[in-house]
Amino acid sequence: MKLSVYLSGEIHSNWREEIIDGCKTINLPIEFLTPVTVHEASDDVGANILGTEAENFWHDHKAAKINAIRTKTGIRKADVIIIKFGDQYKQWNAAFDAGQAAALGKPYIVIHPKETTHALKEVDAQAMAVAITSTQVVEILDYVLTQK
Amino acid sequence: MKLSVYLSGEIHSNWREEIIDGCKTINLPIEFLTPVTVHEASDDVGANILGTEAENFWHDHKAAKINAIRTKTGIRKADVIIIKFGDQYKQWNAAFDAGQAAALGKPYIVIHPKETTHALKEVDAQAMAVAITSTQVVEILDYVLTQK
Amino acid sequence: MKLSVYLSGEIHSNWREEIIDGCKTINLPIEFLTPVTVHEASDDVGANILGTEAENFWHDHKAAKINAIRTKTGIRKADVIIIKFGDQYKQWNAAFDAGQAAALGKPYIVIHPKETTHALKEVDAQAMAVAITSTQVVEILDYVLTQK
Amino acid sequence: MKLSVYLSGEIHSNWREEIIDGCKTINLPIEFLTPVTVHEASDDVGANILGTEAENFWHDHKAAKINAIRTKTGIRKADVIIIKFGDQYKQWNAAFDAGQAAALGKPYIVIHPKETTHALKEVDAQAMAVAITSTQVVEILDYVLTQK
Amino acid sequence: MKLSVYLSGEIHSNWREEIIDGCKTINLPIEFLTPVTVHEASDDVGANILGTEAENFWHDHKAAKINAIRTKTGIRKADVIIIKFGDQYKQWNAAFDAGQAAALGKPYIVIHPKETTHALKEVDAQAMAVAITSTQVVEILDYVLTQK
Amino acid sequence: MKLSVYLSGEIHSNWREEIIDGCKTINLPIEFLTPVTVHEASDDVGANILGTEAENFWHDHKAAKINAIRTKTGIRKADVIIIKFGDQYKQWNAAFDAGQAAALGKPYIVIHPKETTHALKEVDAQAMAVAITSTQVVEILDYVLTQK
Amino acid sequence: MKLSVYLSGEIHSNWREEIIDGCKTINLPIEFLTPVTVHEASDDVGANILGTEAENFWHDHKAAKINAIRTKTGIRKADVIIIKFGDQYKQWNAAFDAGQAAALGKPYIVIHPKETTHALKEVDAQAMAVAITSTQVVEILDYVLTQK
Amino acid sequence: MKLSVYLSGEIHSNWREEIIDGCKTINLPIEFLTPVTVHEASDDVGANILGTEAENFWHDHKAAKINAIRTKTGIRKADVIIIKFGDQYKQWNAAFDAGQAAALGKPYIVIHPKETTHALKEVDAQAMAVAITSTQVVEILDYVLTQK
Repeated sequence: MKLSVYLSGEIHSNWREEIIDGCKTINLPIEFLTPVTVHEASDDVGANILGTEAENFWHDHKAAKINAIRTKTGIRKADVIIIKFGDQYKQWNAAFDAGQAAALGKPYIVIHPKETTHALKEVDAQAMAVAITSTQVVEILDYVLTQK
Repeated sequence: MKLSVYLSGEIHSNWREEIIDGCKTINLPIEFLTPVTVHEASDDVGANILGTEAENFWHDHKAAKINAIRTKTGIRKADVIIIKFGDQYKQWNAAFDAGQAAALGKPYIVIHPKETTHALKEVDAQAMAVAITSTQVVEILDYVLTQK
Repeated sequence: MKLSVYLSGEIHSNWREEIIDGCKTINLPIEFLTPVTVHEASDDVGANILGTEAENFWHDHKAAKINAIRTKTGIRKADVIIIKFGDQYKQWNAAFDAGQAAALGKPYIVIHPKETTHALKEVDAQAMAVAITSTQVVEILDYVLTQK
Repeated sequence: MKLSVYLSGEIHSNWREEIIDGCKTINLPIEFLTPVTVHEASDDVGANILGTEAENFWHDHKAAKINAIRTKTGIRKADVIIIKFGDQYKQWNAAFDAGQAAALGKPYIVIHPKETTHALKEVDAQAMAVAITSTQVVEILDYVLTQK
Repeated sequence: MKLSVYLSGEIHSNWREEIIDGCKTINLPIEFLTPVTVHEASDDVGANILGTEAENFWHDHKAAKINAIRTKTGIRKADVIIIKFGDQYKQWNAAFDAGQAAALGKPYIVIHPKETTHALKEVDAQAMAVAITSTQVVEILDYVLTQK
Repeated sequence: MKLSVYLSGEIHSNWREEIIDGCKTINLPIEFLTPVTVHEASDDVGANILGTEAENFWHDHKAAKINAIRTKTGIRKADVIIIKFGDQYKQWNAAFDAGQAAALGKPYIVIHPKETTHALKEVDAQAMAVAITSTQVVEILDYVLTQK
Repeated sequence: MKLSVYLSGEIHSNWREEIIDGCKTINLPIEFLTPVTVHEASDDVGANILGTEAENFWHDHKAAKINAIRTKTGIRKADVIIIKFGDQYKQWNAAFDAGQAAALGKPYIVIHPKETTHALKEVDAQAMAVAITSTQVVEILDYVLTQK
Repeated sequence: MKLSVYLSGEIHSNWREEIIDGCKTINLPIEFLTPVTVHEASDDVGANILGTEAENFWHDHKAAKINAIRTKTGIRKADVIIIKFGDQYKQWNAAFDAGQAAALGKPYIVIHPKETTHALKEVDAQAMAVAITSTQVVEILDYVLTQK
């Protein structure tokens, strides 16, 4: 069995690399999918390609929709979705992706520090695992694929 | 045409009453659905009914799952979903509900102050309308139902 | 059997009234659903409720999305969809609704003059009937409901 | 991530080649799918293979249904759909394809000149991007696949 | 619990009346749905309403599509589908309806004489019951609704 | 909000009456659905209506399929499913119903004694609540419907 | 674009070979799927593998269900379904497969002689093409894949 | 045609190896998928990776959810599901998987000794075959793939 794994959420730390590298080291047959993680490009892509906007709302709107092409496709192609909540920012897009995964019946794993347990209880309630570290996620993926 | 409208999100202000009362005043044929909005009951329902837990995580987990019976049923029965983001708290459950609405192809309206535009751009991108006040939502529902 | 029938398309002639009145005269048990058919309200609703826009594109965009709340709900609730193409205007929204009906597997009936047969062949190909007059649609609905 | 991209709509200009060539030049991993774009073959295929018809309506009908085998399969296989509206003809089939994409929850991009903004507002409202040129679409696909 | 029951298949004997009357006598809360059962009307409805055709194929085609509005709606609304195969005619429409029921996961009951067991084995294989008489179907519906 | 609740599983104790009576006492707006709970009728219905079988396998098979008409319809109509595992018998049908609920994304509540926790861990893992008594289920349904 | 094509229906003539060979000759990229076409094996597979039955009904039932594993999988994997009706036998399984294709929204092509037009009008009404010869089907598949 | 086959159920005998080896010997093009079959790892995976729990219920819960990532993915990827019930233990997870297969419309084969026929009648009723030995399953898969 091969897996397609979508890595959603926080783009301000290197947690994706930790998981991807961790899985590569032990040769897990996983195709990783991600949203656009280059922050500035992600914010300005609408204006850059389709033209600038006077209003911030539409500036963001155009960017968010283009990013959704990648996000929606990634979620649809994925067998498993990993969603990381960091300790900063609102990260509503991460919870939004979790809601999509839940509605589509796709198993997802949440990563977040203990401190946000109460605030994330609805998201955690539908998750297949709630981890704190990237290493735990690598171990889960290893177990799921190799029974080890 | 009658509508079922689910009111998701913030439970710390009286925005639901504003919308419900506003629609009643003009006799719109709407059945309103809501999550449990009694904060303390909502947090402790798992322990209250199924027994206490030593760990906060499981205390929250049991509550969140029981609440999900109401939330999932409400979202599934709704024709339109209204999601309010206030200016406090993480409100990840609101974004989680929006994600479910998006994945199910249900039209949803977001209410939030201008200040959170950038942080909510992914949620707004799939919305049918982004309002600032409860009155605007009443006007939209009025228009959708009566063409006025 | 009762039917819910959505009347999509042209808003510049009284074809909806012809069908609704025709069915009422013979007491067919049909709930009729429609898009917003007040042209000006339909064009300006976004600006009217959510605030004006400097750009025409966004003026239209906000209106079209609010209108979609009604359109999408109507199409989803309908058992049968009637789509009228007049002899003026582009009427891409009518073909757009037909595409939604086709993808959802909902039976739909098209009304258009003979002159547009070639241009509408893809839309006609998935239709259950291609009529020229409102009277024919009333007769079809009468037959479908009463076997007469 | 690889993408399957369906190029729907206008068959009277070389916009498909522009997009396909543009993406090839920068080595994007895309499988392009298209409707039949040989105009005459497309119009007469029903008569050519299954026998001539006295009535234009059935001549068109048989052709449109055979073409639908390719169109429906292309839309179903596609991750992303690009729909071009030119400045001539009714192009209802393009709007019909957009409606199918919308109902299936597939992200789509519309290309059309500014002049048709108002007439296409319902189609644009559900799109992930509204472009004017083929180059913009190549840039979006490049960004979606490479984050550049 | 109330049931909607669609009675598909043979239109040359009074089996529908037997079932409907049998269920009425014992007051079962069932809404019965049927195809058009007036044979001649059913064959000619396309020509009668939409105009005559020189070719038999198109005469039949137009009628069959209008009939499909009723058939598809009936199958979609039904909780349970009853499909009767008589001892005459091809009755491919009955098997076609059974295939739709099977693909939609709707429970269906087949009625046919013992003689056609081998020819109907694929249809029977997905059925919830294979009856020989209308009385047996009434008994099954009685049991399903009242546990008697 | 009204609820449809399907009561699946054990038929050897009066737990269904406890829940139904408990909910009636406090006037909850619930329609209860159940499988056939008359044990002997349930085992022999195939033979009773459609004729006896020499082989036990087919005797059971015919009965199980007729019972499935009621079970499948009940699960499909239900908003919430309650599944009781007693301390006797295999009760594979209860776990089978739970699997259907899980695959359909319907929220379900499991009732079982503590002793079977390990054996039911897969079924519990997808449940919205795991109760021990009928009273707890009544309290959950009360809370879900009235917020109390 | 590659296609998966399921060849359903008659197993008493060599029409499948005609289509497969015809497509191979012109190098069409098609994976062909078929039901079991070895008649005797198909009739007796239940008894051969799982044990003999005294009753013809169960003999056929066991065989039909095992065959359904292949048939259902083939229909689900197919992009396009070809269904041949010969001039002999009841061929209800062919119409049953057509019904499944229709309900799943899969494009299908019917092959039958002119004589059975009236009896097959419901099956033809949902088809994308109605052919008389295997050669016509090869030409359609060629056109769909190569635009020629 | 290739098949993906998921082997669900009992993990205390070597029935999976018998089927996998039996199919390999005759070169059937099958990808086999399985749950985690290392019993102890399967029970303790939650505690091992995510931390120990004081309560048995949560110890099991965390393990069961991580195992569900593999189980749900396997069932979703599978064309055919084989479910073995041994003569020991409750094996509710096997019946739970069968329920998921039934709800998803996936063909499944059950293996169990004659003695459990009555208790498994609901599970058997939706199965495509009920076998007693692994050899029979190999023969069915051989027949389904090679017509032999």
